[in-house]
Amino acid sequence: MPDKTIQITELILRDAHQSLMATRMAMEDLIPACEDLDNAGFWSLECWGGATFDSCIRFLNEDPWERLRTFRKLMPKSRLQMLLRGQNLLGYRHYEDGVVERFVEKAAENGMDVFRVFDALNDIRNLRTALKAVRKTGKHAQGTICYTISPEHQITVFVEQAEQLLELGCDSICIKDMAGLLKPAPAYALVKAIKETCGQDIRIHVHTHATTGVTLVSLMKAIEAGADAVDTAISSMSLGPGHNPTEALMEMLENTGYNTQVDMERVLRVKAHFDKIRPRYGEFLTNFTGVETEIFKSQIPGGMISNMESQLKQQGAGDRVKEVLAEVPLVRKDAGYPPLVTPSSQIVGTQAVLNVLMGRYKVITGEFADLMLGYYGATIGMKNPEVVAKAVAQSKKKPITQRPADLLNPEWDQLRASAIALEGCNGSDEDVLTYAMFPQVAPKFFKTRHEGPKNVSKDPVKAKPAAAAAPAGAPKTNGAAKGQLTEPVKYVVTYAGKSHNVTVAPAE
Amino acid sequence: MPDKTIQITELILRDAHQSLMATRMAMEDLIPACEDLDNAGFWSLECWGGATFDSCIRFLNEDPWERLRTFRKLMPKSRLQMLLRGQNLLGYRHYEDGVVERFVEKAAENGMDVFRVFDALNDIRNLRTALKAVRKTGKHAQGTICYTISPEHQITVFVEQAEQLLELGCDSICIKDMAGLLKPAPAYALVKAIKETCGQDIRIHVHTHATTGVTLVSLMKAIEAGADAVDTAISSMSLGPGHNPTEALMEMLENTGYNTQVDMERVLRVKAHFDKIRPRYGEFLTNFTGVETEIFKSQIPGGMISNMESQLKQQGAGDRVKEVLAEVPLVRKDAGYPPLVTPSSQIVGTQAVLNVLMGRYKVITGEFADLMLGYYGATIGMKNPEVVAKAVAQSKKKPITQRPADLLNPEWDQLRASAIALEGCNGSDEDVLTYAMFPQVAPKFFKTRHEGPKNVSKDPVKAKPAAAAAPAGAPKTNGAAKGQLTEPVKYVVTYAGKSHNVTVAPAE
Repeated sequence: MPDKTIQITELILRDAHQSLMATRMAMEDLIPACEDLDNAGFWSLECWGGATFDSCIRFLNEDPWERLRTFRKLMPKSRLQMLLRGQNLLGYRHYEDGVVERFVEKAAENGMDVFRVFDALNDIRNLRTALKAVRKTGKHAQGTICYTISPEHQITVFVEQAEQLLELGCDSICIKDMAGLLKPAPAYALVKAIKETCGQDIRIHVHTHATTGVTLVSLMKAIEAGADAVDTAISSMSLGPGHNPTEALMEMLENTGYNTQVDMERVLRVKAHFDKIRPRYGEFLTNFTGVETEIFKSQIPGGMISNMESQLKQQGAGDRVKEVLAEVPLVRKDAGYPPLVTPSSQIVGTQAVLNVLMGRYKVITGEFADLMLGYYGATIGMKNPEVVAKAVAQSKKKPITQRPADLLNPEWDQLRASAIALEGCNGSDEDVLTYAMFPQVAPKFFKTRHEGPKNVSKDPVKAKPAAAAAPAGAPKTNGAAKGQLTEPVKYVVTYAGKSHNVTVAPAE
Repeated sequence: MPDKTIQITELILRDAHQSLMATRMAMEDLIPACEDLDNAGFWSLECWGGATFDSCIRFLNEDPWERLRTFRKLMPKSRLQMLLRGQNLLGYRHYEDGVVERFVEKAAENGMDVFRVFDALNDIRNLRTALKAVRKTGKHAQGTICYTISPEHQITVFVEQAEQLLELGCDSICIKDMAGLLKPAPAYALVKAIKETCGQDIRIHVHTHATTGVTLVSLMKAIEAGADAVDTAISSMSLGPGHNPTEALMEMLENTGYNTQVDMERVLRVKAHFDKIRPRYGEFLTNFTGVETEIFKSQIPGGMISNMESQLKQQGAGDRVKEVLAEVPLVRKDAGYPPLVTPSSQIVGTQAVLNVLMGRYKVITGEFADLMLGYYGATIGMKNPEVVAKAVAQSKKKPITQRPADLLNPEWDQLRASAIALEGCNGSDEDVLTYAMFPQVAPKFFKTRHEGPKNVSKDPVKAKPAAAAAPAGAPKTNGAAKGQLTEPVKYVVTYAGKSHNVTVAPAE
């Protein structure tokens, strides 16, 4: 029997409410849980990054940097953790290296301890600058492997990626299963293989979602294979498109030789707090609290399926969902088997819808063309050359093979100049970064920041569903579960020789 | 790697709707799923017994025997399975052996194949007659061990029980975890120990509930230890106080060397059917769809906790729930550690409430006195002699050590005479058994049977919540989750020299 402490990254302050209630939770509702969380014995507390930055300025009139500083003050004993989209940072495009470095430096300065850095395509080149910057600050650099299933994604591919991440100096490896696709057998095999190849003392963290109902078993198997830490969320903010419950993980390990050293009493106090809070966010809450195993086929996360259904209905084609779900794996194959995670899930899903409605690749979105032509980075699989040719023809762009950010010129000075010209900008590097990340949203936020944070759960009238205000034809964004659109996606639809710019964005 | 087919008992026709929607599902809503269920490749389909019999005549104006015959006709290829409460059959008292034998014979004759026989106290004497009767019909006799946790319930105790059940000629052993208490480590140890002691070819079935969130992992461990079959419910009728989803179990086993040979396409069709049906039973649906690990401490199933809260509130003591939850384990200890399952959970829970409100054992219910004095059978643990003495004093009854049914005289002729005198009784043995089981409810049912079954999901006005009509002071019975009261419990409250007969029953 082993005798090992399994460490836990508690997700309740970030991914839990991002997955269950469209990242809408106000800071004032998180604060009462902080003391217990800080003293419960978690390895780290994920509390920033992902969609929280966007949500703060778009919906909550809250300065995300201030949120970070507040967490730092309230949880002095704990490692604070964030999710960072590599070269995209928390925005929707590739940033020039200088901006990436500045962002990491400022995040560390404001209190961040652990940077979980990922790239939607698992293109290591998109992680390099961010990970190097983290190392420079002396903080914990966690390199991430996005888990996905395809004929190309053999265990060896992921092990190679782990080796590359370790060569970059990562302090730990995260296996990130964003759609609940990691089954028990591959969870065991993957952790085992990385440990055997890279060394038993390499820290492996496993992040899963509960969507398919099997991933608590996968965590058990990952632990048996040697995983050091797992991600969970306290039960009143768990399950469905969210995560496995922290308490269940703790109880599961009893008498197995593994333990967690986490204080159950404090966990139950946090649970009780969010039990009270959760219903107040009713209009943002996901309807989906069950288990959905059909995701294994399409790999499209639950929330994204309902998005596509709504897109199809608006086109009067609500009966063609099954065709679209069957088309998704084909489109994914043509694109070289990208993992499906924001934004690749939206890009592939939208292209599958267009293929079904208009004929295969008759219309290629600007984003799908970029994906086919390398502008998001490289994919592990070969791209279908016929589709690449169509993407070239329709987008009038050339395929690239270099790291996308290598095409960018230094941009900090220009970003700074644009930001400080805005009403309400305080001139700090943090404000410049906020502007850099969300140039459409930041101006309004700077202007209204002095009014202070708002709690969208309190007044149901003010907090009308975002979808109601969204442009016709746009996917629903309220109750956005994992994989639903919480960020603008722009694309150009060219059909019968005419180009149309289309932006699908959450309403502000 | 093993190469083994794990068989599945599908629960959607019985325990799933009993646990999630107070057993209210009408036959007409079950019928459309039957063809797919019959052809999906399940080892058995649990579809009768438990609370379905009661619910049929109490709420659905439906003849439970006709329900069984219909299932038999619609699912000719499958093993039909029922849950039988040993000497209690499906009623609330011990029946004389002749009645037990007649019931089993008639159930077999009407189409039942597999009889899962259990006793709330794990008293093997309460199982003997029913199991012998099943053997006589040539049908499958499954002996059941109710899983519970206490200092007395070492693995060896359960293994001994398994040996005793096999001596009675059982065709298989079921480990029944009615509250979701079976964790992975003991699941493995228990199955392993039974197989090692009783033989590797002894069939072991494992039944769990999803309440605590850990039991899918426990099923994995039980399978690794050699379990042959597990119970699940198709996902649209799973989780919360219900069961682990069938699809998740199937996906979980991929590439593990275990397989299920169940047809996923048919499963998904059944899933889609109940996805549509489920919301129509909204008023009966449990509110609890999450995970509740605090049950490990009190062992009181989730639904029962809300029952006790409501009892306490009605006494103006809503703030004393924590005291009651702390009292439950003490009362259970005094009673010799009975498993907590209907009716022992209600009996122990109610006594804990009275202990907190009136002082410890100042008032002992008639039912708790019966439990202390052996009238339900024997418990594994020593009973607290001081509490036994108080039970004797308050109830004016003597402790017994013999099998409770040994105190009963043959009663068939009398039951028959009473039944056939009732308006609408058709004179069949089946009708006599219906009367025997539910003498308060059967008369009304016989009278209205000709009106045909009613579907309580259709007209929300007719189907008002049962609690609204329940007597003041009675626990809520609507939305009854696992462990909530769906059966009448009678007790005598003696306080300050005065006796009061109290019956807590679901409103008709």
